[in-house]
Amino acid sequence: MSPLPPFRTVGIVAKLHSPASRGAAKRLFSLLTRRKVRTLCDPETARFLGEKGKGRTVPTLVASVDLMLVLGGDGTMLGVARNMARRVVPVLGVNLGSLGFLTETGLEEMESVLDEVLQGRFEVEERMMLHASLARGRRKISSHRLLNDVVINKSDLARILEMNVKIDRQFVSTYHSDGLIVSTPTGSTAYSLSAGGPILLPSLHAFCITPICPHALTNRPLVVPDSVRIEVTLESGTENVYCTMDGQVGFPMKAGDRLSVRRSGASLPLIVSRQRNYFDVLRRKLRWGAR
Amino acid sequence: MSPLPPFRTVGIVAKLHSPASRGAAKRLFSLLTRRKVRTLCDPETARFLGEKGKGRTVPTLVASVDLMLVLGGDGTMLGVARNMARRVVPVLGVNLGSLGFLTETGLEEMESVLDEVLQGRFEVEERMMLHASLARGRRKISSHRLLNDVVINKSDLARILEMNVKIDRQFVSTYHSDGLIVSTPTGSTAYSLSAGGPILLPSLHAFCITPICPHALTNRPLVVPDSVRIEVTLESGTENVYCTMDGQVGFPMKAGDRLSVRRSGASLPLIVSRQRNYFDVLRRKLRWGAR
Amino acid sequence: MSPLPPFRTVGIVAKLHSPASRGAAKRLFSLLTRRKVRTLCDPETARFLGEKGKGRTVPTLVASVDLMLVLGGDGTMLGVARNMARRVVPVLGVNLGSLGFLTETGLEEMESVLDEVLQGRFEVEERMMLHASLARGRRKISSHRLLNDVVINKSDLARILEMNVKIDRQFVSTYHSDGLIVSTPTGSTAYSLSAGGPILLPSLHAFCITPICPHALTNRPLVVPDSVRIEVTLESGTENVYCTMDGQVGFPMKAGDRLSVRRSGASLPLIVSRQRNYFDVLRRKLRWGAR
Amino acid sequence: MSPLPPFRTVGIVAKLHSPASRGAAKRLFSLLTRRKVRTLCDPETARFLGEKGKGRTVPTLVASVDLMLVLGGDGTMLGVARNMARRVVPVLGVNLGSLGFLTETGLEEMESVLDEVLQGRFEVEERMMLHASLARGRRKISSHRLLNDVVINKSDLARILEMNVKIDRQFVSTYHSDGLIVSTPTGSTAYSLSAGGPILLPSLHAFCITPICPHALTNRPLVVPDSVRIEVTLESGTENVYCTMDGQVGFPMKAGDRLSVRRSGASLPLIVSRQRNYFDVLRRKLRWGAR
Repeated sequence: MSPLPPFRTVGIVAKLHSPASRGAAKRLFSLLTRRKVRTLCDPETARFLGEKGKGRTVPTLVASVDLMLVLGGDGTMLGVARNMARRVVPVLGVNLGSLGFLTETGLEEMESVLDEVLQGRFEVEERMMLHASLARGRRKISSHRLLNDVVINKSDLARILEMNVKIDRQFVSTYHSDGLIVSTPTGSTAYSLSAGGPILLPSLHAFCITPICPHALTNRPLVVPDSVRIEVTLESGTENVYCTMDGQVGFPMKAGDRLSVRRSGASLPLIVSRQRNYFDVLRRKLRWGAR
Repeated sequence: MSPLPPFRTVGIVAKLHSPASRGAAKRLFSLLTRRKVRTLCDPETARFLGEKGKGRTVPTLVASVDLMLVLGGDGTMLGVARNMARRVVPVLGVNLGSLGFLTETGLEEMESVLDEVLQGRFEVEERMMLHASLARGRRKISSHRLLNDVVINKSDLARILEMNVKIDRQFVSTYHSDGLIVSTPTGSTAYSLSAGGPILLPSLHAFCITPICPHALTNRPLVVPDSVRIEVTLESGTENVYCTMDGQVGFPMKAGDRLSVRRSGASLPLIVSRQRNYFDVLRRKLRWGAR
Repeated sequence: MSPLPPFRTVGIVAKLHSPASRGAAKRLFSLLTRRKVRTLCDPETARFLGEKGKGRTVPTLVASVDLMLVLGGDGTMLGVARNMARRVVPVLGVNLGSLGFLTETGLEEMESVLDEVLQGRFEVEERMMLHASLARGRRKISSHRLLNDVVINKSDLARILEMNVKIDRQFVSTYHSDGLIVSTPTGSTAYSLSAGGPILLPSLHAFCITPICPHALTNRPLVVPDSVRIEVTLESGTENVYCTMDGQVGFPMKAGDRLSVRRSGASLPLIVSRQRNYFDVLRRKLRWGAR
Repeated sequence: MSPLPPFRTVGIVAKLHSPASRGAAKRLFSLLTRRKVRTLCDPETARFLGEKGKGRTVPTLVASVDLMLVLGGDGTMLGVARNMARRVVPVLGVNLGSLGFLTETGLEEMESVLDEVLQGRFEVEERMMLHASLARGRRKISSHRLLNDVVINKSDLARILEMNVKIDRQFVSTYHSDGLIVSTPTGSTAYSLSAGGPILLPSLHAFCITPICPHALTNRPLVVPDSVRIEVTLESGTENVYCTMDGQVGFPMKAGDRLSVRRSGASLPLIVSRQRNYFDVLRRKLRWGAR
């Protein structure tokens, strides 16, 4: 049981790409209005609801609300989480059809779940976030708080990248591969899994460093405590390399650029279902029941 | 720098299968005698050294010494660690030729390293151990403290096992596979790695649950915090199944038997080199430098 | 279109473990009787149908019929194929519920499909079989024609096997692993797939040699032409090793025993659906459609 | 023993990036001159040797010589092979230090090997080549004969590609992945191996279709006969995709573009050592001997 006080302002971020999602946005907004909860929305949703005065950009929303409703897939949730740079608020994810790892509430139950949440009856799972910053020489190019992963990837011609990896200033190895993923437990079921990485339980305090198509077959995924600082330097001689954060924003990298990853000071309070636990979601998403 | 007091009694466990190992045992014993340190040995080594009065079984040795020297491969080290049921003492592993994950001191440096250790100049890495117990109905069949892993494996005909896995009483999945490995970070570079598991840093507080040749290709290795209790029940209908501990002792399992795994209360203080860190060992053992 | 003449004698081998399978056996037998086709059955099915005079052991059945109906799962089909040592006849596989790789006709369509087949309207896919023989010194211990695979596997304690592999008398490597699978294309979607092997199209003239949990991570599956002779020698020093054929019959192996594998002279004519091709079956069995 | 007549004109393609390679080029040229064999070179090598009249572009070289000497790594060999569009000549690969899969003759033995070859004492291994062509609507964008592989790969942001694969006009699956590799047996030990593909023996008549980091974990590598035609269509909605041939030339792809792959009419006669066979090379390159 969460000790949080009742929510005074609630934000809605929705992906309005289908009649079902537009209908759901309307129903959520209407419920919140009936419950006399102040509601703000992303600009497109506000416009769609005919409530232009309630439109805010996602960073502003995050700064203004006590609870965030995310209506869409896991990608929508990642976008909201990435904008929680200064402040982190509890999030309830509603999926539009297919169960997500982060959006586990379905359309058919969203209103009853939201009602429970508004009455303070809910549980949160704190999801560790990582802090990734990219530096060129002495200049910081970019810095983000991320829920899933940061990826160094080559583009175009099939040349192999050369990356030097250090953990807490200790040299680990020079990786020759298509790229490298540093993921949180939450991100372990996303890109890292496709690249051969293991599944990390959300409650584990760890990162997974997963090389993408490594030249050396013994370069296996490496799971490290989240208390370390991981530093990846792109060695000289490679071109057309990108650093991608949560699969959503990307930065071109040059030889010598350094990616630094550590645990973020804040973690995301994800409101989780009382009906199903993490393993239920895992079994359904990965079809473990099926033979 | 370790704050441990100087060692008064030292134990030697050696695998005397080659002239080199016999020579090394002699040199270690002679050095300890010169340093006026009381030395006890496993029975075979005592006999070989002509010091029958100093022979003790491994469990008795563990109970009597302040420091243990292990001369052999990683398997020898596992055998010593498994006998530390009541008491855990620091261990220095000396390999007889090829670098081990647990026996990283070479023959050429063992005397200078031991001299440093006797003067209190050494560092230890606490290696987490797991506690595995096997139960049939209300009866406990076996219970061990292990450094590497506990494995459920089928034997003879190529039938698939069916195992029910729970973590902290929550149902994870029913695994259909050749078997299942629960490994510590130390064990992650042993059997689990061959079965497709990741490498866990020794400082990580985690277990890895790695299925062996799972029928469902999505049944990937699962890394969980070491604070959990893992329970594996062998479902009815399977025969000729063994539960193997650190690859050294095995117990036949029957349908309904339950394997329970949790973190052991004690961890093994492994004396580590100041010349090389874990990543140096990893790179050499897995030939990461090589293209 | 197959040029085969109409079938005069048809055999039924059924797994009568459920009301559905018993009902299906009755319906198939009744259809064949109506079509005035002579029908023989395995002993248990004959007894169940009250037609004891028509009961034959599987090897006798194979010798006596022009077409074999197999009612059950892929395992039942493997058992029938393994008994086709001297003679090979076309086989139609009917599954009892879940689509099999080898039994792709469902209960709901089996009568209409059988009617088509009896009128000569069907297509066969020739499935390559392998010939495995096990020798100790100069003595042949066992020899079988197999549809899926031959497996060398260790039992009980988790020790690693050491096997020497030669292809056409050329030394390939000494494998240190839990075991080794030599599979046909048909067997590539069975055990070999779980051990990390690729999928081989049934029309490919090849074997796959797949090590099980190899100690050397670079010991990857090896696909070789089916014109070669593969010889695997179990090196000295290992115990409790089994050689298993199509997962159904097993032979204990001793150090020095040699397993020899080559393409069988005959291949199995598997009657395949006109409604679905191999890729349809693959997509459904491996859930490739699913995200 | 090859029945080929003595060679009248020999070509040299060399990678002159080190003193060792420049020395080797000189020695090869000098040996050929002493043996009174007409020798042509790539332009840079001709310039370096002070024999500008003998410089030819690689395609012209291929058209003019009976034997090609390739001095460099596997990449150099791939470049020469890719230029054998109209005519294919035997090739001897000399490596500059580290053994290659395609360049297995070492500097220390190259002169004695070449002497043997010039006297007709050598063996060739015919290496299957693939023919890849890329089409947009009715227009062919590019068409190449390749020794290793053709790869479809995404660039920059970590979005997943969607590709429709057909084999002989039969729908196989829609792949959601980072990319897709179609490789020859020769290419199976290159990129495909890093992406999880099996090793195909050079004498196998097959392609391997290996997805790169597939979203569906059951999308395993598929080995198909080299008699088929593989067609991969890039589905709409993806951007920044490249089609790369032998890792050397790349073409941007648009939604709807079709890659078509079939066996090339010609195969490459690779002159192989009598001292070592394919498995010797495999063991050394993949360090199978090492524990």
